[in-house]
Amino acid sequence: MNVVPPTSASLIAALAGVLPNGGLLTETQDLARYSRDWSGDHFGRPLAVARPASVEEMSALMRHCHAERIPVVPQGGLTGLVGAAVAADGGEIVISLERMNRIRSISPIDFAMVVEAGCILEDAKRAAGESDCLLPITFGAQGSCRIGGNVATNAGGFNVLRYGMTRDLVLGLEVVLADGRIWNGLKVLRKDNRGYDLKQIFIGSEGTLGIVTAAALKLFPKPTQIETALVGLRSVEDAMALYARARRDCSDLLTAFELILRQGIEITMREGVDFPDPLTKAYPAYVLIEVSSGGLIDLSAMLLGFLGGVADIVEDGIVASTRAQAERLWLYREIMVERQGRGGRYLRTDVSVPISKLADFVTDALAALEEARPDALAVTYGHVGDGNIHLNVVPPEGMEPQAVEHLFEEAEAEIFAVVDRYGGSISAEHGIGRVKQKAFLERIDPVTLDLAAGIKQAFDPRHLLSNGRILASKANHGL
Amino acid sequence: MNVVPPTSASLIAALAGVLPNGGLLTETQDLARYSRDWSGDHFGRPLAVARPASVEEMSALMRHCHAERIPVVPQGGLTGLVGAAVAADGGEIVISLERMNRIRSISPIDFAMVVEAGCILEDAKRAAGESDCLLPITFGAQGSCRIGGNVATNAGGFNVLRYGMTRDLVLGLEVVLADGRIWNGLKVLRKDNRGYDLKQIFIGSEGTLGIVTAAALKLFPKPTQIETALVGLRSVEDAMALYARARRDCSDLLTAFELILRQGIEITMREGVDFPDPLTKAYPAYVLIEVSSGGLIDLSAMLLGFLGGVADIVEDGIVASTRAQAERLWLYREIMVERQGRGGRYLRTDVSVPISKLADFVTDALAALEEARPDALAVTYGHVGDGNIHLNVVPPEGMEPQAVEHLFEEAEAEIFAVVDRYGGSISAEHGIGRVKQKAFLERIDPVTLDLAAGIKQAFDPRHLLSNGRILASKANHGL
Repeated sequence: MNVVPPTSASLIAALAGVLPNGGLLTETQDLARYSRDWSGDHFGRPLAVARPASVEEMSALMRHCHAERIPVVPQGGLTGLVGAAVAADGGEIVISLERMNRIRSISPIDFAMVVEAGCILEDAKRAAGESDCLLPITFGAQGSCRIGGNVATNAGGFNVLRYGMTRDLVLGLEVVLADGRIWNGLKVLRKDNRGYDLKQIFIGSEGTLGIVTAAALKLFPKPTQIETALVGLRSVEDAMALYARARRDCSDLLTAFELILRQGIEITMREGVDFPDPLTKAYPAYVLIEVSSGGLIDLSAMLLGFLGGVADIVEDGIVASTRAQAERLWLYREIMVERQGRGGRYLRTDVSVPISKLADFVTDALAALEEARPDALAVTYGHVGDGNIHLNVVPPEGMEPQAVEHLFEEAEAEIFAVVDRYGGSISAEHGIGRVKQKAFLERIDPVTLDLAAGIKQAFDPRHLLSNGRILASKANHGL
Repeated sequence: MNVVPPTSASLIAALAGVLPNGGLLTETQDLARYSRDWSGDHFGRPLAVARPASVEEMSALMRHCHAERIPVVPQGGLTGLVGAAVAADGGEIVISLERMNRIRSISPIDFAMVVEAGCILEDAKRAAGESDCLLPITFGAQGSCRIGGNVATNAGGFNVLRYGMTRDLVLGLEVVLADGRIWNGLKVLRKDNRGYDLKQIFIGSEGTLGIVTAAALKLFPKPTQIETALVGLRSVEDAMALYARARRDCSDLLTAFELILRQGIEITMREGVDFPDPLTKAYPAYVLIEVSSGGLIDLSAMLLGFLGGVADIVEDGIVASTRAQAERLWLYREIMVERQGRGGRYLRTDVSVPISKLADFVTDALAALEEARPDALAVTYGHVGDGNIHLNVVPPEGMEPQAVEHLFEEAEAEIFAVVDRYGGSISAEHGIGRVKQKAFLERIDPVTLDLAAGIKQAFDPRHLLSNGRILASKANHGL
């Protein structure tokens, strides 16, 4: 952030008038839980936390902030992990969506639901399920993240290969603009080509162009059959060959295809006797496969038929015969994600390359890392059906914090250099925020930067919304 | 269009220098085929036709037009039917994409292809098929329309319910901007959350924000099984009840669900003995159902199981047992579309409502039409799985042209009033162009209009690109 003028206590006090009924928090102890993200790695103390309870209150709040040039940052579940939603220290008001958390409607006939931005993803998924529908967005943080954040960051997850990113699931949005006007683009139409599709501009904009207050989302029939398998493979290359065959043989019924390298499985095995080596011997690579469907298909026969036809690649595997067994297989992945940092900090990357280049990318990136920093542990897993890999780096135990910082910088530079060579993305899922801004701006071409800046200027000319996320911060005569 | 200054012959002559090798057409007889759209209903004579053969030539052309403030309209296959791509009479240069028609690459592993904007959709589909892949965009005009037009209008079609609109299939774009700069957003990554997703702004913008010169498109495994059925139903309401059950029973393998009312079937039956009444008796409503999959599913059993379970709704139907029979069932729909106007003009509408309201919408719209204009013939069919209906109106034979115009205005107003009541869209697939602009601007709210105008201003401040399409035309100091 640029240098901001000192806090204006009177401006903050005026905000309390705009948001009655405890809508404004200003006490230090109340601000704590809005100051630190899910990982604990990113924090920033807001000047105050505004918690509007309706789109009208949000509109009044933003009209006030716009008139007074008060910089704000909308905040959902703080699980984005790139520092987008925590305040720039001491310079911003956090706008929490937590009080706008209603499910406004669900229609199983339209396969659509309208949900407020502060609704926790898992609550929205549960409500969809109760109407015999599926809201497909699925990932580890689903018990904490909020729908508005999913939309603002175009969240991905396990099921993207079948159902798409969050963008693909949004039918309509309600957004409060930087100047407080309400843009009502909420609708459940499946097809609508009336002029520019404005909702696309807000999706994935990380809170920099408007504040999403509600979303109309596509639903799908809730699967009545789910089949899960874990297979062991000789290499990442074989995993990608398996994926190519799975796409053809499984007829778009593939819902997950998750790669885990051997070290990842070993992290979970350290949990003890409940998590033995899952196959008869150790393999360099593992893939967790999930297929799902309705009732009129013999899904189990399809999966077994597929696995029977790939015996040249798959040496060994287990097909879960009960839901409990399937959940157990997924635990190998979940525990690995939770435990990979050994309770300490680790470098997260979230990169993508064309699917055809993924195996070579992993080989090259791991080799570069091993050569530059043989002391670090690489943990590699990802949604490889989308060409998306999380290549994380864990420092040796007991390393000094400053040395850890240096290790992370060096490791990230090594990984990103290989991403560049393969024409990939340095942020497949999590966005840019502030954490990846430097690497992003170093790589962005001037035409793209100019177009992006033009959009920001058109939507938020005073640079009050999430200033300094994605694009460099601009002076906004803030508090 | 606003009043434009008289043609500057010297400006046109200078264009010829920018586009060597026959890239500029100026002779009246050469301009004819760029002046009239596919329906024959919309025409406009361009000042000249520019045919750049590469992105570099397109860039040079637009740099020149921008410097000299020459208004242009990009043109694909002229099948959009809303007057977007024909010139404003005498006031614009048409930029034809027809010489940029190469398929740059196909990768069956990435399930992606990169195609230039002038490539005819059917050619792109054929090339994908030769690599054992499917490019899903499918509709009647596919032998004439071009990929750039599909992207610029966010084309729909038969397979949207399975594969989405064109927007959902675009992985990346190459675009020449209003000032001639090239924006290179071509990439085949499945996930990429680096900042604003700029390609979304160009998709569906009908040539008003940039000229799409190439697109990277998602492909799918080519189905190895396709099953087709035609069923007879008592009502549109029953058709929608059938759709709700089909979505659940057919596990996202449903690729088409096309409603045709009885008059539509009768139009095809008039072709003669080759097209008998397709079922044992006449039904008020028919649905053409298609499912498709790869090899490891018993697709025929799935379809028969589904039809067996809906005997309470479906009184009668045929399942095609050969590919030729399936094509024959599709001909009932294709011939109806071709012959509905009896060789003359007819009013096309292309509206959508929430799926749950479609049956009531059709009842109400047909009743309103019958009351207002009992002399007209309504032909009703559509992609009802997307809530999208083409409710077309055919004038009585021999009606005077002026009376026909009046009938169309009256009928459209009746239909759109019912669309408004059901919260629907007056343009589900075809966009706004110039033909639907009045109805569009009458319905647009001021916030949406202001945001749209802001985007236009940011991307084309001189209003040279397709001026007067979607939004009202602005003075651009044109030729």
